[in-house]
Amino acid sequence: MTTTRILAIDPGSRITGFGIIDVSNGKSVYVNSGCIRLPDEVLSVRLKHIFNNVSTLLADYKPNEFAIEEVFLAKNANSALKLGQARGVAIVAASLQDLFVNEYAARRVKQSVVGNGNADKEQVQLMVQLLLKLTSKPQADAADALAIALCHANTRTSGGLEYGVGKRAGRSSKRWTEQDVRKSL
Amino acid sequence: MTTTRILAIDPGSRITGFGIIDVSNGKSVYVNSGCIRLPDEVLSVRLKHIFNNVSTLLADYKPNEFAIEEVFLAKNANSALKLGQARGVAIVAASLQDLFVNEYAARRVKQSVVGNGNADKEQVQLMVQLLLKLTSKPQADAADALAIALCHANTRTSGGLEYGVGKRAGRSSKRWTEQDVRKSL
Repeated sequence: MTTTRILAIDPGSRITGFGIIDVSNGKSVYVNSGCIRLPDEVLSVRLKHIFNNVSTLLADYKPNEFAIEEVFLAKNANSALKLGQARGVAIVAASLQDLFVNEYAARRVKQSVVGNGNADKEQVQLMVQLLLKLTSKPQADAADALAIALCHANTRTSGGLEYGVGKRAGRSSKRWTEQDVRKSL
Repeated sequence: MTTTRILAIDPGSRITGFGIIDVSNGKSVYVNSGCIRLPDEVLSVRLKHIFNNVSTLLADYKPNEFAIEEVFLAKNANSALKLGQARGVAIVAASLQDLFVNEYAARRVKQSVVGNGNADKEQVQLMVQLLLKLTSKPQADAADALAIALCHANTRTSGGLEYGVGKRAGRSSKRWTEQDVRKSL
């Protein structure tokens, strides 16, 4: 049985979330998650902090696959620039390890995990907790990263359902509700 | 006599310009310049290309100081994101070598080199050619990077004029024209 380890990153100019899951036989198992909080320093030091932390995660956990949030609509040019800098650094850390970088739009991540592309942060946190059988709700940025990892697990598993919540192959268009997932756990 | 080597980068999502000068006794001497042209590949490969090329420049030329264009007004959020990614990667390459990253707004660079914050690309190319005594006009992105390097040389040299064009200390508010520079060469 092959296990695939996924590292997902939710980049931000102040906090970068990360989530690591193992996918085996269509089931996703939580490995680790957390936040890289950027120090109150000049830009170059903050970016180095992201690079070093992502590189350490890559070295420590040796993921086979890497996923990151794709950004379509930043609020404005200034925040897009800041986000781009953080995102570029996280991507290059993975790319230097010859990992293919899978990109998923936020809407697609929410659709995949919550069943609603417009889900709010709290719904994402709750569904991630339920899907990965966590004892407590993960912090928001860590939950977003875990949701990206789950979305990637979902996408790479062709023709079947994911997250170990059932074996209803071919019904991936179903909109999952909290109740569905609670029932399936 | 101490020589300070400056590497300056003009990041872009398609072409990243670089310029290297040596500053010694208030005089700036051209070392190298050029463009890092990004391959027609996925984002992660393009960003790795920037990182590896900037890292190679850092290893080969061992600059003491690093400068990059600061971005205030990107055209739109999408181009700001792309520019931010390239910029973040170039900055982190320098930051990983423990170089302080000096940032200069385009307006300030043009003001410093051409004497006009609204100068066009061709004026920047011509003044860079004159100031560094180049036999031909450098390519536009390389010229922008050399202009950033010259601006940094200018800024770090307190109380005097720079680029070896004269010794008129205290007159840095003078708007330099092409004629002034041609005369002083």
